[in-house]
Amino acid sequence: MILGIDIGGTTSKLGLVQDGKVIARARIDTLGHADEHAFADALADAGHRLVRADDHRPLRAVGVGAPNANQLTGIIEMAPNLPWKHDVPLARMMTDRLKVPAVLGNDANAAALGEWRYGAGRGIDDLLVVTLGTGVGSGFIVNGQLVLGSAGNAGELGHMILIPGGRACTCGRQGCLEAYVSIRGMIATYTEAGGSEDVADVKAIADRARASDVAAIECFRRTTEWLAIGLANAVCATGPKRIVLFGGIARNGDLLMAPLRDRFHEVLLNIYKGRVDLTVSALEEDDAALLGAAALGEVGGEGSHAEARRARS
Amino acid sequence: MILGIDIGGTTSKLGLVQDGKVIARARIDTLGHADEHAFADALADAGHRLVRADDHRPLRAVGVGAPNANQLTGIIEMAPNLPWKHDVPLARMMTDRLKVPAVLGNDANAAALGEWRYGAGRGIDDLLVVTLGTGVGSGFIVNGQLVLGSAGNAGELGHMILIPGGRACTCGRQGCLEAYVSIRGMIATYTEAGGSEDVADVKAIADRARASDVAAIECFRRTTEWLAIGLANAVCATGPKRIVLFGGIARNGDLLMAPLRDRFHEVLLNIYKGRVDLTVSALEEDDAALLGAAALGEVGGEGSHAEARRARS
Repeated sequence: MILGIDIGGTTSKLGLVQDGKVIARARIDTLGHADEHAFADALADAGHRLVRADDHRPLRAVGVGAPNANQLTGIIEMAPNLPWKHDVPLARMMTDRLKVPAVLGNDANAAALGEWRYGAGRGIDDLLVVTLGTGVGSGFIVNGQLVLGSAGNAGELGHMILIPGGRACTCGRQGCLEAYVSIRGMIATYTEAGGSEDVADVKAIADRARASDVAAIECFRRTTEWLAIGLANAVCATGPKRIVLFGGIARNGDLLMAPLRDRFHEVLLNIYKGRVDLTVSALEEDDAALLGAAALGEVGGEGSHAEARRARS
Repeated sequence: MILGIDIGGTTSKLGLVQDGKVIARARIDTLGHADEHAFADALADAGHRLVRADDHRPLRAVGVGAPNANQLTGIIEMAPNLPWKHDVPLARMMTDRLKVPAVLGNDANAAALGEWRYGAGRGIDDLLVVTLGTGVGSGFIVNGQLVLGSAGNAGELGHMILIPGGRACTCGRQGCLEAYVSIRGMIATYTEAGGSEDVADVKAIADRARASDVAAIECFRRTTEWLAIGLANAVCATGPKRIVLFGGIARNGDLLMAPLRDRFHEVLLNIYKGRVDLTVSALEEDDAALLGAAALGEVGGEGSHAEARRARS
């Protein structure tokens, strides 16, 4: 039994995970606590209640996915979208309260581990998971290990520069993949292609494309081209066997995934052709973050990259 | 004692390596043999002579660096610049002849292992080595392991697309980093910047830049910008602690490395700032390929990624 916790800007979700399934759920507000200690107390209380309600089967580990979380240190580092602007050592705080090993990781890495343990990347030891949403996150798995990098923050595919001197990105630089193929990026592309400025999300653009709106069709065409190049570039780094795309944008099979598969294989360096496939997450959207967090707890608890480093140092 | 072999298009070099130093050398022609078996016989003969001349100290392993070599399979795969146009299982052929474990790897990966074991990346378990020459090669080391990827051909930084729709690349695609920052790429940049078309190598461009030739100075400026972005993009994948540049182009400290360090740190995603350094290979140019090949034999023999996979499968 593993407790997965997904920390969001307004709500934090908890789920008990057994055999790759979420068997019980809870949620608490992220906002409104006196400080991070009170928040950790509330998380631990909710976790304890879930475990008690589940007939007291023993909890083996806790995994926590959060924005700006550093898996090597177990610290949430000054997350702009969370109420605490300083470093919060949440892994240690949860271990202290729940008395089991707790592993903290960033949400994209959690998603990667979730796909690897329970989802469309199960058993694939060289895997790339890309989350397409407000931002573009990624987790690289190489030789059966999540790549954390020397400072614990590897795997930022969304901030590879795709168009030098291109669109402004939220990171303060220009031309990042995220500035083109995220929700915000697609809305910008739609208006650049001559679409009206009243679209609020990708679903609206997709609806218009299906109704033959020229700018919406062009928006998906450009997004496909940029994403194909971004993914082909990622393959040049770690040579994954499979790429799993996660998030609402990737659920547009007709408008995005079908042309993307074609274009990706066309644009791939010849030595990789036929050696990497591209698929969409099969996890339920609601459960994916909880399963990812649980995978973090499970894999981390069994000897993650972080633990291997600690043992060596 | 390890035998390192570096297979080139016209000449193949052999070196006995002990404690990170090449203590004896030999070379044979790559061309002019009846077939690959005769070539392997000639390599083995030269290897045996080196070992005998060295007082018969026991040979522990052989490492072979070659273009288009696949470390997972031990096969040179249809190398366009070698005399054999079919697959050559050279690792097995050398093991048969020399009776010690032989590991075959591509030359850029060999260079990466050489820097990691004996050079400027010694002891750095998250490392990126980039070779700047006729092409742009790379080897990623993650968590103390060379990244081979699922098909044994990971680490092609030179074929990340830097400028979508840009310059034609030798790989048949457009806009690859290699089309900009290799020797050929720099010559193209020089002529694009208005330089005369009579330059044959980067040294000539560097000499002109030092003599205040405007096009040559502009060529180095653009090369610096492109390489800074290419390296910053690589950091987003695996988060190395150090990047080592290898090859004649990188030896232009004043024209390239000094401005490149500045621009690289400027263009780096903020979360990596101060966490990755950029340096130049300190290995002797003549020995580097042999040391790299030897490192392949040493690391491979001790349980490389390839061996770990074989054990698992």
